[in-house]
Amino acid sequence: MERRKPINVSDAIQQITNRAEQGTVETVPLFASLHRYLAEDLIADSPVPPFDRSAYDGYAVRSADTAAASPESPVYLKVIDVIGAGTISERTVGANEAVRIMTGAPIPEGADAVVMLELAAEMEDRGRSGIVLKRPLRAGENLSRRGEDIAEGERIIERGSPITPGMMNVLATFGYDSVKVYRKPVVGILATGSELLQVHEPLVHGKIRNSNTFMLAGQIQNAGGEAVNYGVVSDDFEQSYETITRILSEVDILLTTGGVSVGDFDFIPAILERMNAELLFNKVAMRPGSVTTAGIYGGKWIFGLSGNPSACYVGFELFAAPLIRRISGAASYALPARLKAELLEDVSKPSPVDKFIRGTAESRQGRITVRTGGLDKSGAISSLAETNVLIAIPAGTKGLKKGDQVEVLWLNSPIKGMMNFD
Amino acid sequence: MERRKPINVSDAIQQITNRAEQGTVETVPLFASLHRYLAEDLIADSPVPPFDRSAYDGYAVRSADTAAASPESPVYLKVIDVIGAGTISERTVGANEAVRIMTGAPIPEGADAVVMLELAAEMEDRGRSGIVLKRPLRAGENLSRRGEDIAEGERIIERGSPITPGMMNVLATFGYDSVKVYRKPVVGILATGSELLQVHEPLVHGKIRNSNTFMLAGQIQNAGGEAVNYGVVSDDFEQSYETITRILSEVDILLTTGGVSVGDFDFIPAILERMNAELLFNKVAMRPGSVTTAGIYGGKWIFGLSGNPSACYVGFELFAAPLIRRISGAASYALPARLKAELLEDVSKPSPVDKFIRGTAESRQGRITVRTGGLDKSGAISSLAETNVLIAIPAGTKGLKKGDQVEVLWLNSPIKGMMNFD
Repeated sequence: MERRKPINVSDAIQQITNRAEQGTVETVPLFASLHRYLAEDLIADSPVPPFDRSAYDGYAVRSADTAAASPESPVYLKVIDVIGAGTISERTVGANEAVRIMTGAPIPEGADAVVMLELAAEMEDRGRSGIVLKRPLRAGENLSRRGEDIAEGERIIERGSPITPGMMNVLATFGYDSVKVYRKPVVGILATGSELLQVHEPLVHGKIRNSNTFMLAGQIQNAGGEAVNYGVVSDDFEQSYETITRILSEVDILLTTGGVSVGDFDFIPAILERMNAELLFNKVAMRPGSVTTAGIYGGKWIFGLSGNPSACYVGFELFAAPLIRRISGAASYALPARLKAELLEDVSKPSPVDKFIRGTAESRQGRITVRTGGLDKSGAISSLAETNVLIAIPAGTKGLKKGDQVEVLWLNSPIKGMMNFD
Repeated sequence: MERRKPINVSDAIQQITNRAEQGTVETVPLFASLHRYLAEDLIADSPVPPFDRSAYDGYAVRSADTAAASPESPVYLKVIDVIGAGTISERTVGANEAVRIMTGAPIPEGADAVVMLELAAEMEDRGRSGIVLKRPLRAGENLSRRGEDIAEGERIIERGSPITPGMMNVLATFGYDSVKVYRKPVVGILATGSELLQVHEPLVHGKIRNSNTFMLAGQIQNAGGEAVNYGVVSDDFEQSYETITRILSEVDILLTTGGVSVGDFDFIPAILERMNAELLFNKVAMRPGSVTTAGIYGGKWIFGLSGNPSACYVGFELFAAPLIRRISGAASYALPARLKAELLEDVSKPSPVDKFIRGTAESRQGRITVRTGGLDKSGAISSLAETNVLIAIPAGTKGLKKGDQVEVLWLNSPIKGMMNFD
């Protein structure tokens, strides 16, 4: 096999960006649409509110009738009708008349203001009910005008927006009980390596359990994809080749973990070559995860991720996660999220390539700190349990001191103090 | 109905905290455990790594044999065996011998260091393969010692921790193909009000579509609960009473929206009274959402949320969301997450009570800004689509200026520039 040529992280990302497109569209019930990406613009086909309505429980009145109201000379208005929620009044409010009204009910003809229930003293006058007001109302007071919130024809939400709970309210308001969204990409996971045991198997000397598959399943779900477990294939070229070819017919993206290093038993780049797949890159100038491979075959994506847990983790977040978000419908190719954080310890080793160190970020009164996850070896797993960011250290950085502000890539895992886990 | 007595936000939260407990436990497949809360401590039943292993592809050697190696006087070692991944060597490495080894494979007897493949020149000597080294190796170089990552018996993850992708790796490493987690609470949603149309129905004068149900569904899912839609009940006391009683037998928490205001047709507090439910509060000194009711009946929780979309939104996030997280297994009662953000506009109105304004936060090079969502009326929905935080303004605040640092409660919705949506 020929020697691999590393490319820069930004170039590797560019290789994927150039080819990533939003996927196909499907319709899902609004109730189950959270976190999906809208596949159409939402245009208001009616104004909101749809009619002038009361902002409070109270009485609809003519503001002119209240102009002279004061504590010394209160105004008496006759109550001529009662509007419950969902009902409308056929009556027109005339001089010195009022209609009892509920929050959200349409303002009856003639009225132009609402007095809140608490400020209207109820009073009987010769057997007819009425109210007494001690202060004047402005025209428009305590009511919401038709269209003041959203005008008819307004574009409210753009295609490619992630659906939030608030957006679900807006979609329901406009009658969408189902919505067009982009389909979730199906992402297969195949672990390679004769050293791998199934998770339920007891340990035997020289072997370890397949754990990356489960980490990747979580990462895929976080990114919005649908994860499928294709188990473990041993280090046999023909068997690996056949398995990978078969899986590619069933998924949008295939992730392999293991089998990408420089050694004798690493097949993924060779398999891509034999398939005549388009190779985007097979080495990236970064640590960990330098031996990450990416290719395209028949419109399907293949990522050969390292078997080392943290190298696998980093390779996924930098290259596969943004692709999954893009296919899932994100308006643009979405890189991992960035925050600034205060480093809690020295990270002295300089690095000739871009480095991504597992970190645990925490928020203390809004100030975000980060510490590294202890043992910084790409095979270590203990630090992964608490990892919620990657500390991004650009190539050529001389070493960082405690207290420095560093850039961290946020990975959708809880940040203590910031993410509901105080 | 007697006049309601408002309690402070913090007292209302305390009322819930006092009674909230982690729910029951169930076992789920590890593959599907993301975001669930672990219901047991994870104790290492074996060390990680389980044996001394190679950190690279290369050759296992005795460091003593390499002590004199230099470019001028290289050392020749005979290769006596080859270890593939998942296999072990029966051979003991003797003087001036080496064993070809793969990343992750166990170090054979006798060897105490690994030379990386790239640094070992392969060479034939009288028909027998060997390697030539030009620099000495330290004992322990390029290998990972048994237990250096995790010691046997170590407590790695605590009960009540949310499961992250990295944690899924650790769980798999220790053989958990299924995990004990807390059951997701079932949260029913019942919209009340004769003014409500179904989402699919055309608008008619005086009515609006039921939209809060769908917003709450998204909020419940964000908080980790399982949302169930119980549709709409009209403003009829007997019917509402019967419906609510029936639903309570099927859910852990019931949310109603609408029917909690001061008007004639608002039943929720009265229904709680008739049920003999324990009333925690029926009014909170805050805006919006002051008419939020909370009660407990037969171990089930009932929240009467406002029918106004943003009041409903706020009431849910402050009181119901933390409860859902707690029942789902969070180690402590978890309040909404807090961040500091720079206000992009004046918010001049002072408030005598705690105020929670819908806001849209954005991150620009790690600096977090927030703007209010336009029309600040509790009935407005346009701003909800972009809402990702609530700007928390404590009672008595005189008014805020553009540029002020304010506290925002983060609501699990994407923050542009921070949350993968650049």
